[in-house]
Amino acid sequence: MAEPRIGVVGATGAVGAVTLRLLAERGYSDVRPFASARSAGTTVGDGLRVEEATPEALAAGDLDLALFSVGTSASLELVPHAVRGGAAVVDKSSAYRLEPGIPLVVPEVNGGRALENDGIVANPNCCTIPLTCVLKPLHDAAGLRRVRVSTYQSVSGAGAQRMEQLRAQAVDDHDLAMDWTWDGDETDEESKIRAEAQKILELPELPISATTVRVPVLVGHAESIWVELDEPLSPEQATALLRTAPSVQVVDAPTPRAAAQTDQVLVGRIRRDRAAGESGLVLFLACDNLVKGAALNAIQIAELLLDRVAA
Amino acid sequence: MAEPRIGVVGATGAVGAVTLRLLAERGYSDVRPFASARSAGTTVGDGLRVEEATPEALAAGDLDLALFSVGTSASLELVPHAVRGGAAVVDKSSAYRLEPGIPLVVPEVNGGRALENDGIVANPNCCTIPLTCVLKPLHDAAGLRRVRVSTYQSVSGAGAQRMEQLRAQAVDDHDLAMDWTWDGDETDEESKIRAEAQKILELPELPISATTVRVPVLVGHAESIWVELDEPLSPEQATALLRTAPSVQVVDAPTPRAAAQTDQVLVGRIRRDRAAGESGLVLFLACDNLVKGAALNAIQIAELLLDRVAA
Repeated sequence: MAEPRIGVVGATGAVGAVTLRLLAERGYSDVRPFASARSAGTTVGDGLRVEEATPEALAAGDLDLALFSVGTSASLELVPHAVRGGAAVVDKSSAYRLEPGIPLVVPEVNGGRALENDGIVANPNCCTIPLTCVLKPLHDAAGLRRVRVSTYQSVSGAGAQRMEQLRAQAVDDHDLAMDWTWDGDETDEESKIRAEAQKILELPELPISATTVRVPVLVGHAESIWVELDEPLSPEQATALLRTAPSVQVVDAPTPRAAAQTDQVLVGRIRRDRAAGESGLVLFLACDNLVKGAALNAIQIAELLLDRVAA
Repeated sequence: MAEPRIGVVGATGAVGAVTLRLLAERGYSDVRPFASARSAGTTVGDGLRVEEATPEALAAGDLDLALFSVGTSASLELVPHAVRGGAAVVDKSSAYRLEPGIPLVVPEVNGGRALENDGIVANPNCCTIPLTCVLKPLHDAAGLRRVRVSTYQSVSGAGAQRMEQLRAQAVDDHDLAMDWTWDGDETDEESKIRAEAQKILELPELPISATTVRVPVLVGHAESIWVELDEPLSPEQATALLRTAPSVQVVDAPTPRAAAQTDQVLVGRIRRDRAAGESGLVLFLACDNLVKGAALNAIQIAELLLDRVAA
């Protein structure tokens, strides 16, 4: 096929910047950045001029693919126009993730679902992506019964502005935070992790309990995980499974800094859950929330869609 | 009784400094700071001159109470001399915590055990103290079956030098760490939390699984906790129990900064464990690791011992 015409909507944000970098690294040359009127006319990436993300521009019919990394309300407003214009859309907001009929895709876990789309494929939450990459091989081998996860999420997950706030803050003021909106007795992040992992793994009843916490780290999310399995699985067996899992790398110390700017989900601390006997494992993972946790996963989805167009 | 003669051994460290401050606030006036030869002769607290912590000085017989906050090897070397000199010792290192016959005490949980000592009472790990303050009322009401905990520990738990390192570090380099020594497939911190909580709660078989993580916060530890109980206990019932528990304060957002410099264990996020049904709860706590997590708890133990002397 001809060089795909790619629009990056939300190109001036933290994830948008990584998206532009990864597209350039992968050799895509027909890339157009879009953002709000405020940023239109500025340049991003390798000297690309930002266009205003208007319904008309997105519906004009000159994009094969549109990668959205804007807020939920902006996605709800703009994505339908890009679809109307004929672009295949990968949306990174939570706007469409749980919509029936819209695929929610981690290519290593359920990549085949990407092709079952009517114009939109949703990209999961930045914690759900690495979590499902690690859970999938364990489920296939021994069956997931219960999952508990406590997160250590960097401020870049809340956007570029929060990164600047952390840089400007005195270290004495650094703190943990639960700076999401609330959904009953949980943060919306906690209910997203559960609902999205259930959808991606196609285990709609899987019990998942999450506690999400923001830590004063710029880039890289980590997760402390307990899994209970239907069948016994030793830490050695789990390690062997994870060593061959796609996009997963087993390491001794999976920290956000070690994961930053890599394409991998780092996983380690794989051991018996001393509170659960032979059916329980404990793990710890880290992942660059802007790369595999967001921009890279969306580009991987896009490449599944482009392959279809090419075939 | 006369004003107790109190020695603070390790007076120049992060916990020692807080110990001196709390003793002064509580009106103790006969307080002598001890430290290594390197610090002897300097002044600490309110102009107190530091003495060298030699075996002879500690065994001289002129201390009623010795509060140790030094490393494990220094405690093993020096504590017996203070005991020989007739001082009641509260030791904050891990040297004696798991020794049979040596009480390991959180006054709100098992204060009565403090009096069953032969000269030494051990002060628990800075994560174990707040954890047991929260677990005890839940156990008394519904019976603990399993505990899982993931920690968010500040760098002050690793000493004053690590605090200076964090202050000097660029925010871009802030990271999570598991900077403890290792004990098989766990950090020694993880096995300490399990073994110490089992001893304090007098539940030697209680299954506890911990993952300990250092976060780039100066002061204040937090813990993400899942408990499974023998009997159903609603989040509302647990909240009511914790509201009346000593040294526990129920809050919406238990963060290290909110807990810093307070005497309380802050607990919140109390909700149903969606992975466990009616027998499971999720909680989050924060506590000043230098105050209730260390210096204050040791002073509370000392006051139980001084009461005995006074009686």
